[in-house]
Amino acid sequence: MATGSGKFPQMHPVSGFRLGTASAGIKTPGRKDLVVMELSESASVAAVFTKNAFCAAPVTVAKQHLESISPRYLLINTGNANAGTGEIGLADAQQSCEVLADLQSLPATQVLPFSTGVIGETLPMDKLLAGIPSAVEALDENGWADAAEGILTTDTRPKGSSLQFQLDGSSEIATITGITKGSGMIKPNMATMLGFVATDAQVDPELLHRALRLVSNKSFNRITVDSDTSTNDAVVLTATGAGGVVIDESNFDQFVDNLKKVFIELAQSIIRDGEGASKFVSVVVDSAEDSAEAVKVAYCIAESPLVKTALAASDANWGRILAAIGRAGVENLDVNQVSISLNGVLIVEQGGRAASYTEEAGEQAMAAEDITIHVCLNRGTAIETVWTTDLTYEYVRINAEYRT
Amino acid sequence: MATGSGKFPQMHPVSGFRLGTASAGIKTPGRKDLVVMELSESASVAAVFTKNAFCAAPVTVAKQHLESISPRYLLINTGNANAGTGEIGLADAQQSCEVLADLQSLPATQVLPFSTGVIGETLPMDKLLAGIPSAVEALDENGWADAAEGILTTDTRPKGSSLQFQLDGSSEIATITGITKGSGMIKPNMATMLGFVATDAQVDPELLHRALRLVSNKSFNRITVDSDTSTNDAVVLTATGAGGVVIDESNFDQFVDNLKKVFIELAQSIIRDGEGASKFVSVVVDSAEDSAEAVKVAYCIAESPLVKTALAASDANWGRILAAIGRAGVENLDVNQVSISLNGVLIVEQGGRAASYTEEAGEQAMAAEDITIHVCLNRGTAIETVWTTDLTYEYVRINAEYRT
Repeated sequence: MATGSGKFPQMHPVSGFRLGTASAGIKTPGRKDLVVMELSESASVAAVFTKNAFCAAPVTVAKQHLESISPRYLLINTGNANAGTGEIGLADAQQSCEVLADLQSLPATQVLPFSTGVIGETLPMDKLLAGIPSAVEALDENGWADAAEGILTTDTRPKGSSLQFQLDGSSEIATITGITKGSGMIKPNMATMLGFVATDAQVDPELLHRALRLVSNKSFNRITVDSDTSTNDAVVLTATGAGGVVIDESNFDQFVDNLKKVFIELAQSIIRDGEGASKFVSVVVDSAEDSAEAVKVAYCIAESPLVKTALAASDANWGRILAAIGRAGVENLDVNQVSISLNGVLIVEQGGRAASYTEEAGEQAMAAEDITIHVCLNRGTAIETVWTTDLTYEYVRINAEYRT
Repeated sequence: MATGSGKFPQMHPVSGFRLGTASAGIKTPGRKDLVVMELSESASVAAVFTKNAFCAAPVTVAKQHLESISPRYLLINTGNANAGTGEIGLADAQQSCEVLADLQSLPATQVLPFSTGVIGETLPMDKLLAGIPSAVEALDENGWADAAEGILTTDTRPKGSSLQFQLDGSSEIATITGITKGSGMIKPNMATMLGFVATDAQVDPELLHRALRLVSNKSFNRITVDSDTSTNDAVVLTATGAGGVVIDESNFDQFVDNLKKVFIELAQSIIRDGEGASKFVSVVVDSAEDSAEAVKVAYCIAESPLVKTALAASDANWGRILAAIGRAGVENLDVNQVSISLNGVLIVEQGGRAASYTEEAGEQAMAAEDITIHVCLNRGTAIETVWTTDLTYEYVRINAEYRT
């Protein structure tokens, strides 16, 4: 199950960024499961990784490599997360970098490894290594759609976003294109499962990092399927500089605005394809004292199994939303100031059922596939949005059967 | 679904404590849904209530009444939580106390009201008030079993615990007997949905409060079905003093030890009857730096939807347990020190799969109905246990259909 049309968008190629995809048979014979991405020599790179203490071997290796030199290649496999695999896992991640680096006559530190899939099993290294040459051979600036398929696990569809923009007063066109994957174990803490975004604009590494932090915090760090932060989360943002647009402090905000559009579309596409999802839910908390308070309340609603099962049943069970707000730990919350609406229908005002509310209006609002739960705390000016799914039988089936 | 035998225990009556149950037709005609409990004039009472900011009307009224005078009656209805009902709800709770108080010629402040059931609907006052005389007429020291039924909502069975003990060097026998209810919206924060425990020992109010806080923190405050703290949680502990045993500082610890047995049995009975539960899961976290750290890690595992769905499938998916530990926010956690066992089978050591582990051994351990997940952090001396359930289709069905 999934929500929205799921149509894969037209992907503008990014000059200086090539992608190659192969079928290495890592978990399922014949499916695309190995992706190589090649960055131009002059490219800047920024990356954010999971904050899970049990981070996967490739995350550890990628961080080490990033510290020493700017990368030229990203190597991604699906079907196996190479997490909880100890010393063997680290050696495997390192060796896969070496094989690709040897093929392209570079030091292994210029390759960043990424893995996603089941936790706790070692990589089938023979298959993975044997697949690398085919992926390299397939490298192409038009390789985005294949790569979007090649990084999926329990996702039901590929996820991409692409746009072109002009800076004010300039005729030069810049491109931003990206792909992501993720469907379960989704509550990114700095990044989602995996996301790869590239632009042909020229952006120095410091600015690129700042942009990545800003937009991640309004996209991948604002989604939850099941409140479980993965061991393998990573988002990589590359600026090849191969186009004519140069980003500096003067036009940074315009760049960030466009980048944010791509990031939010990618993050939302994960929620639309959330495991078992039959609803796409935006939880908006406004008039909070500060941003942290708004986020806390929004996640408390978005992660409540009782709210999520009510959403699955299209039941306007506002008592559960109210209970979730009440347990969010907001200090000195005046519950009589709280109001809640569902897709524009006011259901709670002054902490109790709204006088104007009818069950019929609630039912009608809940029948939609896209639901916005809007909470006003009426105690400040901060506003935040978190996106989530409902909790369905299908979610339980997928996760009870995933390993078998 | 539920786990364990579910056999209702023999309930020793508590001298000075009578219970009467009636069918008022509050939600379902014919079912027991109204309970009156009568405390002897000399009884001490201690109570703890939900910390949910949206606490229900009866919680507000009960707290007010407790401040002014020692209660003589508890009035409990099921089928309707009288929560999210604003001023009408407060007036209804107050009026129900007045009607019972008038009947017994007492001030209304000597009655404490309790409600449990659906949130957001006003009490059907005509039915509730009409049922009070029958409940009063039924008052009996042997009324525990009927009362245990009369407080249930989505529970599939009544829950009780009862024991008798002698203090060291004394021939006097003291009794502790209690009942509880709860199955969903279970993550008590000071207490569970509802619990009523009485002893015939004589315990002054200050000692009784201290005992209640101590034992709640190792029982009702250590369970979670779905991480949702209810709006109506309350536990009331009564000491009638009608028996011959007097509790003071010298024998307080013995009293607490016995009280704890009853409280833990009651709290565990909620988990055994957790919505949709097919497993009874004890999460033990030891060698933590402090108790708070152990509790944090234990809840992170116990509340993880991915761990819970794996448990439902009897799948020893230790990668999900490891990921849950990793995201618990333990500072400077050395993952290489962490070990995990499932029902005595070592599955993770030094942060990765244990050398001795086989899938067969894991499957065998997971086949049991009662599962202990034992985590060693190897960084301190604190140990804590949290009890929880698995997450099944049945949980989703119950909560998607509850209001319809």
